Amino acid sequence: MFRYAFYALLGLCISLRPCYAADVLPSWNDGTTKQAIVEFVKRVTSKDSPDFVPGPERIATFDNDGCLWAEKPVYVQLAFALDRVKALAPQNSEWKNKEPFASLLKGDLKGVMAGGEHAIAEIVMASHAGMTSEEFEKIASDWIATAKHPQTGRLYKDMVYQPMLELLAYLRSNGFKTFIVSGGGIEFMRPWTEKTYGIPPEQVIGSSIKTKFEIRDGKPVLIRLPEINFIDDKAGKPVGIQMHIGRRPIAAFGNSDGDLQMLQWTTAGPGARFGMIVHHTDAEREWAYDRDSPIGRLDKALDEAKSKGWTIVDMKADWKVVFPD
Amino acid sequence: MFRYAFYALLGLCISLRPCYAADVLPSWNDGTTKQAIVEFVKRVTSKDSPDFVPGPERIATFDNDGCLWAEKPVYVQLAFALDRVKALAPQNSEWKNKEPFASLLKGDLKGVMAGGEHAIAEIVMASHAGMTSEEFEKIASDWIATAKHPQTGRLYKDMVYQPMLELLAYLRSNGFKTFIVSGGGIEFMRPWTEKTYGIPPEQVIGSSIKTKFEIRDGKPVLIRLPEINFIDDKAGKPVGIQMHIGRRPIAAFGNSDGDLQMLQWTTAGPGARFGMIVHHTDAEREWAYDRDSPIGRLDKALDEAKSKGWTIVDMKADWKVVFPD
Repeated sequence: MFRYAFYALLGLCISLRPCYAADVLPSWNDGTTKQAIVEFVKRVTSKDSPDFVPGPERIATFDNDGCLWAEKPVYVQLAFALDRVKALAPQNSEWKNKEPFASLLKGDLKGVMAGGEHAIAEIVMASHAGMTSEEFEKIASDWIATAKHPQTGRLYKDMVYQPMLELLAYLRSNGFKTFIVSGGGIEFMRPWTEKTYGIPPEQVIGSSIKTKFEIRDGKPVLIRLPEINFIDDKAGKPVGIQMHIGRRPIAAFGNSDGDLQMLQWTTAGPGARFGMIVHHTDAEREWAYDRDSPIGRLDKALDEAKSKGWTIVDMKADWKVVFPD
Repeated sequence: MFRYAFYALLGLCISLRPCYAADVLPSWNDGTTKQAIVEFVKRVTSKDSPDFVPGPERIATFDNDGCLWAEKPVYVQLAFALDRVKALAPQNSEWKNKEPFASLLKGDLKGVMAGGEHAIAEIVMASHAGMTSEEFEKIASDWIATAKHPQTGRLYKDMVYQPMLELLAYLRSNGFKTFIVSGGGIEFMRPWTEKTYGIPPEQVIGSSIKTKFEIRDGKPVLIRLPEINFIDDKAGKPVGIQMHIGRRPIAAFGNSDGDLQMLQWTTAGPGARFGMIVHHTDAEREWAYDRDSPIGRLDKALDEAKSKGWTIVDMKADWKVVFPD
């Protein structure tokens, strides 16, 4: 509540007087990164700028895992799926002898991973399909309200990046519409993105399974089917953006190779464009990883960020704080 | 431009003083239909109403063909596809001897229709796929700027319903977010819905073909593929709504059996809900059709509207004018 009041005030202050870097993005250290953000926003919002962009075209897209919240040691949604399988195990006694469930229930994550993508898909389907969309919304909401990070002991939903929350609010106060474009599940994110990021469900784009409309006991329901509908990752991100937004973003924010095509698509448009990569460089306050990390691998996109002049956030140097107090 | 200024004034006037039915929806005759609309809006927007709905949850979905613009004698998008095939014929000389193109190029629509859904699919793919998303946007924009209705001689984009334009603006001035949920092509509609209806691309839901991200000559593009991605009609409408909006609408507006499931889904939610069917009853100013029309058939949804108490617009009796001046 206080956080939002603060952002509202921030927005008011920005709209009433010239925008000094010192006024905005308080958790960002002064320097070239913050300067690049503020200068881009000025270029596209100043009426007399040759790069002025009308309000409805100010579309900004953000990856979620590793860009807006932490993704280590494993994607939060994977932790959700594992918890869910454990909760469902009593009703699925055959899982004791069936991989990948058997390994999972023994706490043997290596055994799970040995099954590769197929094993992950089985776990996702078992945990994400077979119920109505409303039932799944409640399952995801209930879980996120209490689930805690295994290392920090904080609620996952508080493992969001304070500087990115400020960036989202700063863009919105300058007339941007902010979207999430994540490889994560669209219905896993929607129950909490509005409260956490100020991003309503209709501005969340993600991976999905198929659903089917049915009348059950005289009541219309949407049933979640164990079948992939769309993977919103890598080359899927521009496809998802076009499908949901129908307009090319003018700014895109990511942190891994999964975001490369979104940044290529965004920055290849005409006029002023902004591409940003959050580089995880802070082993003390968060985690430090890039080219060799199986989760959130940042390799090709780091090279391309350098060659194309995208802004690279050095988390350790650029952020005063990482997580909210 | 003047139309929008008028709506802006309308919105201002509504927000400054109590809402009298006489102030709003000027092209709607006073009567039970207009009254039902205004009363629903009051119920969900008055702070002291037990059915008050917070702003972000005020989602209203509208069908397009036959609900916001005319669909007779054929869906506008079919006219577009036919024109497009004609334009492409010189580069596809084999079409002269290949159905359904041969019939189409001879102007024999009955011959085309003899090929059924398969023939329509072939025409849609030939006219809608094989180019980039940006190229298609330009093709659709250029066409809609000049294409005229075969009977009235008016531009198709002026064959929109004035009372529905007022309804869209009235809802938005009361904090609603208005969406199109149409069986028509999502990328066919997006180039003109913002100017025509005040509905931006990200609030347009429709049928789609698959697209693929590629780098061509060093430039990222989205290629439109000759493969169906999603049919946003009938039981597909609630699926499309959940996929794009992620929230159940509180009001839905349709005109045919293709909208039945959208109305079922919308009105089955808790709290105040509004379902409306535009009934084409005006053979003089527009067209009169329902149960026996192959285009825009209104049969089951008309029965269910009556049994469920959805509001039925009698176009002839309820609308002072049909099309804008």
